[in-house]
Amino acid sequence: MAIQALIFDVFGTLVDWRTSIIAELRAFGAERGLAHVDWDGFVDDWRAAYVPAMERVRTGELPWTNLDALHRASFDELADRFGLHVLGERERAHCAFAWHRLRAWPEVPAALDRLRRRYVLAPLSNGNVSLLIDLARYADLRFDTILSAELFHHYKPDPQTYLGAAELLGVPPSDVLMVAAHNGDLHAAASLGLKTAFLPRPGEYGPRQSNDLTADTGIDYPVRDLDDLADRLGA
Amino acid sequence: MAIQALIFDVFGTLVDWRTSIIAELRAFGAERGLAHVDWDGFVDDWRAAYVPAMERVRTGELPWTNLDALHRASFDELADRFGLHVLGERERAHCAFAWHRLRAWPEVPAALDRLRRRYVLAPLSNGNVSLLIDLARYADLRFDTILSAELFHHYKPDPQTYLGAAELLGVPPSDVLMVAAHNGDLHAAASLGLKTAFLPRPGEYGPRQSNDLTADTGIDYPVRDLDDLADRLGA
Repeated sequence: MAIQALIFDVFGTLVDWRTSIIAELRAFGAERGLAHVDWDGFVDDWRAAYVPAMERVRTGELPWTNLDALHRASFDELADRFGLHVLGERERAHCAFAWHRLRAWPEVPAALDRLRRRYVLAPLSNGNVSLLIDLARYADLRFDTILSAELFHHYKPDPQTYLGAAELLGVPPSDVLMVAAHNGDLHAAASLGLKTAFLPRPGEYGPRQSNDLTADTGIDYPVRDLDDLADRLGA
Repeated sequence: MAIQALIFDVFGTLVDWRTSIIAELRAFGAERGLAHVDWDGFVDDWRAAYVPAMERVRTGELPWTNLDALHRASFDELADRFGLHVLGERERAHCAFAWHRLRAWPEVPAALDRLRRRYVLAPLSNGNVSLLIDLARYADLRFDTILSAELFHHYKPDPQTYLGAAELLGVPPSDVLMVAAHNGDLHAAASLGLKTAFLPRPGEYGPRQSNDLTADTGIDYPVRDLDDLADRLGA
């Protein structure tokens, strides 16, 4: 296989969004006398709102709307349901940007540095460009560029995202390896000719996670984590 | 001024394209018995073909065509004029990609690292994304992402490039500082509300250069080089 570039799903695959956001919102709530709020439930519901919001864009019901704007709209809806009417504009904007400040899974920063010596690296995420820039700076993730659904005005798993990434990287889809902790993302990439690597993040959705615990058949590189992938690729 | 992000012209501003490409083509020619060719003249004519080629895209005479493809087409035209019919497909492709392998002006890599501690940094170049990725790796230029005319299907100085860069960076145009060694690029940026910094590169076009030796009036930061800019910005 002549892999030239690696592209990475971000939320769940490279960063632990759930633990990071629960910690930030709990601390935020404690400072404002909102410690009684079910912040774990809030965060799980917030993430659950992500797929239907994207679907409204993917089907054309909504015009192109970036992820910051989708996160902010779903935050406001949930704030009503969780009795957080008290929050003002600045506080809501601060909370919605918690997605810009997420911790990487432990092996990720050093493993990316290893992989980057041999391959061109970029995220390919549904997060918008500025979100991903902030995240890369916050979590110390070094990429060669940021690739985002926002560049194509299409969310994954629309084919324009995977094919657009390969085109901007200047290589054929078969020379691009898509890395994700989600089999569905990889099936979409594989159907367009990209290579695929799956690594499990069984804690991504918390203790009750039941999906994406192992690689589906047909994945080119089922690996334990990014270090294992670097080993497998000889990086 | 609340500057949050810096965007950089690349060819001439950050890298010394002329000396780099003349050196590469001379060495290439010497290896192939083509030492008699006027490589300096070839490179000057190659660069001179750049603006009219882009204009054909900007006016809509040509559909969107990225810079690699424009460089390759003008290389082939010049190869005929300079008696280089002997060159085959692989050699032509290799030469056209000389634009991916350019040396930075001496102060640039360390000054970018200084500026990046305080600001988000990206190129905003007419070079395509994969060209800029290769160049950043080759010349050790660290950016937070790559911004390119290719993302907007518009070449500078079309307004879509400057405004598109600010939008992807998630900041208003007035919070973006455009850095270039070319006053024309900066006037276009300033007319859209961006801040501007000019640094002279009097050797960019060789010993006979007569343009862009000093900053025009109205430039926000007329500086000596990127170190001077970092000093001025307190980075």
